[in-house]
Amino acid sequence: MSEKVRAVQPAGVRDYPPGEMLARQRMLRTIEEVFQRFGFDPLDTPALERRDVLTGNNPDFRMSIWNASRSGARIVTGEETALRFDLTVPLARYVAANLTDLKLPFRRYQRGQVWRGEKPQAGRFNEFMQFDADVVGSATPVADAEIVALMFETMKALGLKRFMIRINNRKILNGLPAYAGFPEDRITAVLRVLDKIDKIGPEGVRAQLSNPPVTDSDDDDELGLGLSKETVDRLMEFVAIRADDPDEVLVEVIKRFGSIPIAAEGERELCTIADALDALGVSRGHWRFDLSVSRGLEYYTGPVFETMLEDLPNIGSVFSGGRFDGLVSRFIDATLPATGASVGVDRLFYAMKELGLVRTDATGTQVLVTVMNPAYEPRYLAMVAELRAAGINTEYYVGEQRAFKAQMAYATAKAVPVVVIAGQNEVENDRVAIKDMLGRTQLGVDRCDMVSTIQAILSKK
Amino acid sequence: MSEKVRAVQPAGVRDYPPGEMLARQRMLRTIEEVFQRFGFDPLDTPALERRDVLTGNNPDFRMSIWNASRSGARIVTGEETALRFDLTVPLARYVAANLTDLKLPFRRYQRGQVWRGEKPQAGRFNEFMQFDADVVGSATPVADAEIVALMFETMKALGLKRFMIRINNRKILNGLPAYAGFPEDRITAVLRVLDKIDKIGPEGVRAQLSNPPVTDSDDDDELGLGLSKETVDRLMEFVAIRADDPDEVLVEVIKRFGSIPIAAEGERELCTIADALDALGVSRGHWRFDLSVSRGLEYYTGPVFETMLEDLPNIGSVFSGGRFDGLVSRFIDATLPATGASVGVDRLFYAMKELGLVRTDATGTQVLVTVMNPAYEPRYLAMVAELRAAGINTEYYVGEQRAFKAQMAYATAKAVPVVVIAGQNEVENDRVAIKDMLGRTQLGVDRCDMVSTIQAILSKK
Repeated sequence: MSEKVRAVQPAGVRDYPPGEMLARQRMLRTIEEVFQRFGFDPLDTPALERRDVLTGNNPDFRMSIWNASRSGARIVTGEETALRFDLTVPLARYVAANLTDLKLPFRRYQRGQVWRGEKPQAGRFNEFMQFDADVVGSATPVADAEIVALMFETMKALGLKRFMIRINNRKILNGLPAYAGFPEDRITAVLRVLDKIDKIGPEGVRAQLSNPPVTDSDDDDELGLGLSKETVDRLMEFVAIRADDPDEVLVEVIKRFGSIPIAAEGERELCTIADALDALGVSRGHWRFDLSVSRGLEYYTGPVFETMLEDLPNIGSVFSGGRFDGLVSRFIDATLPATGASVGVDRLFYAMKELGLVRTDATGTQVLVTVMNPAYEPRYLAMVAELRAAGINTEYYVGEQRAFKAQMAYATAKAVPVVVIAGQNEVENDRVAIKDMLGRTQLGVDRCDMVSTIQAILSKK
Repeated sequence: MSEKVRAVQPAGVRDYPPGEMLARQRMLRTIEEVFQRFGFDPLDTPALERRDVLTGNNPDFRMSIWNASRSGARIVTGEETALRFDLTVPLARYVAANLTDLKLPFRRYQRGQVWRGEKPQAGRFNEFMQFDADVVGSATPVADAEIVALMFETMKALGLKRFMIRINNRKILNGLPAYAGFPEDRITAVLRVLDKIDKIGPEGVRAQLSNPPVTDSDDDDELGLGLSKETVDRLMEFVAIRADDPDEVLVEVIKRFGSIPIAAEGERELCTIADALDALGVSRGHWRFDLSVSRGLEYYTGPVFETMLEDLPNIGSVFSGGRFDGLVSRFIDATLPATGASVGVDRLFYAMKELGLVRTDATGTQVLVTVMNPAYEPRYLAMVAELRAAGINTEYYVGEQRAFKAQMAYATAKAVPVVVIAGQNEVENDRVAIKDMLGRTQLGVDRCDMVSTIQAILSKK
């Protein structure tokens, strides 16, 4: 006998046992149904992509990803393979490779695992699921509104009641240097500070914007930006624009930004989005314009969206997206406008559990048929076949512990809702005993009434 | 602008475009429903496993697999990671790690990608899907019969009519050395030759069994086994046992093997399986005992199953499995009986396409609402929202080509079955035009009758 291997997993990954999987599947199916209702079609791409496709051969690419190679095979430089880290780059690769055949706009959804190489931490995994919907080949803000409507309908379909979709436009943020008077190349640093307003408050933000740069620190967060008082005042005025009414926000934007072309264009787009959301029946209680939203500025080129849960503000956005018009530019000389959003599947599932919206049954099995006497096995199996033919998820007990007590303990531990028992007495009288495990009742019925009796018990759950 | 990256994929992987995905999803959902009806629950495990878990630290492990490692991270010897090559080893790891908490028997199904490192060939991929169902912790042949019944019901639910499940028992094959008089350690080589009978015929098999070994060849297939005439005669007699009636096969087995304990035990198990299949209503026209079936002998320990399509015999088995009682032995000192089967998803899908059982719609979208005049956009969007609320998969046209002709060309190319049109004339009279793209008819209806008219058209598809 060879030495034993330890039954352990690599750090940063996890299993999904049946109880959790059943609930996840329900959630994923709901999301999928809404995505299809919005006219999105499924696409699947492999986990393995060429490394240059994933990194774009970008020397500044810093994300840690998973390299993958055939054991024993020679690695050809320039043809290395790796595991995808999101579903957007594979979409871009697919679109660029199939552009001549593709009908635009291309509305696709994709659900799948992605892999990141960061050092695993509590709650942060190296392998996790994303669920994306994107429209490729449409520049109109109505397509962005469709994405927001999709987010709204998905959240509703999942049973979430208290959520807020925050919408902004990167083009408005791009007007900030001209508006507040600071160099264009500081925009990322400025937005990073503004983004912290919920955490460190207005005075903290003001301090970080004004303080002189501490050049001997490695941590960007420690740096003050050393902006002038006038600039900081205007930025603080900007972040103070907060209104529940989207129209009010737009009026404020026009007042301040009307003369900056890029920001005015951003405002017009948001105005179109607002009209479209009203027409699509997206309730105003569930979305707002929020000028503090910036979401990965280096990537998005227009409207951006995020979804916060009002009862769980600290977990961050559960469904986010935006417009990214540079989709295929790493592959071909073409600008292809695109907009979309991605569900943070694990985060959303966690949130739904916290909010009591997830029914976690230990099993999808509805009936266990027990073995009272092996001599009656053909009879038991015929009952099993009949229950299954009626669409009832049925297990026949094939365990090693044959004692009746052990079989009942198994049914209880697994939380199977109905148990069927037929001992000598039942068999001789052509009857069965049906145990409602939740109602803790037991009925003796005619063998021919077995299916209908069980259907009645199950319909009450 | 940085240099362009080529939008190519690694060798050995492929995309699944929407048309194919929609059909695959229907197939997978059908399989899943049957698996759940048989009382199997879903389990999910990650793609990444420890390499020693996958190889069992077996020095003879020869399969080429995919190693995976975080870019930039130090690889710790003994803790290397790799991509799973099947779903059985991860099941074994999961069961071994959770044995104290697990309720046995554990009936789980799992669907997921697996990765192999063989040099890619036409039709052979490095990344492909498996869909497994297994019962862990049950030694009774009734559990094996349940797996065969699952295979039967799955095939039926997929609409397959002409298929044959071939059943054998490794224990009978293990009686061959004693029966035919050759050393135990030649069994794998003998079975490999017997397995070719469909390809090279009885005379070819006889020749390979008898011919003297050609020791200067590297290719095992070239070797004769040099068995005595008496042994070869008995083996040829064995492979000649073929009967449509399972009971006849068992009688023949008992006649020849009755005195060899392991084979007699195998026969008794098959007898139990036959009775259970009858009781479960598995039609005898769809399964038979076939003593030539051996399926990866080093792995299985009891009954083995495979499913052949009578109209496509050359593609091999589409749904195979068997009993493997050494499931957790690489991890812990325990014998845990297990039996199960695995759908060859890609092979089965290919077969169903060949047999005309796959409807390949290009899109799941049912209705396209066109834009005749942007001024009516709010009206169009309200129609879109109404259609979606009625559960109809609806796309609003957001493409860049706004001409009506371009929109119709898009609907035609995408094969959307219904197109909704509302120009000035319709809007002013509160009507819409509904185009049935398959029936090639166009109806003008009252705006309020839009949903019901479209439902009627769709229900005819």
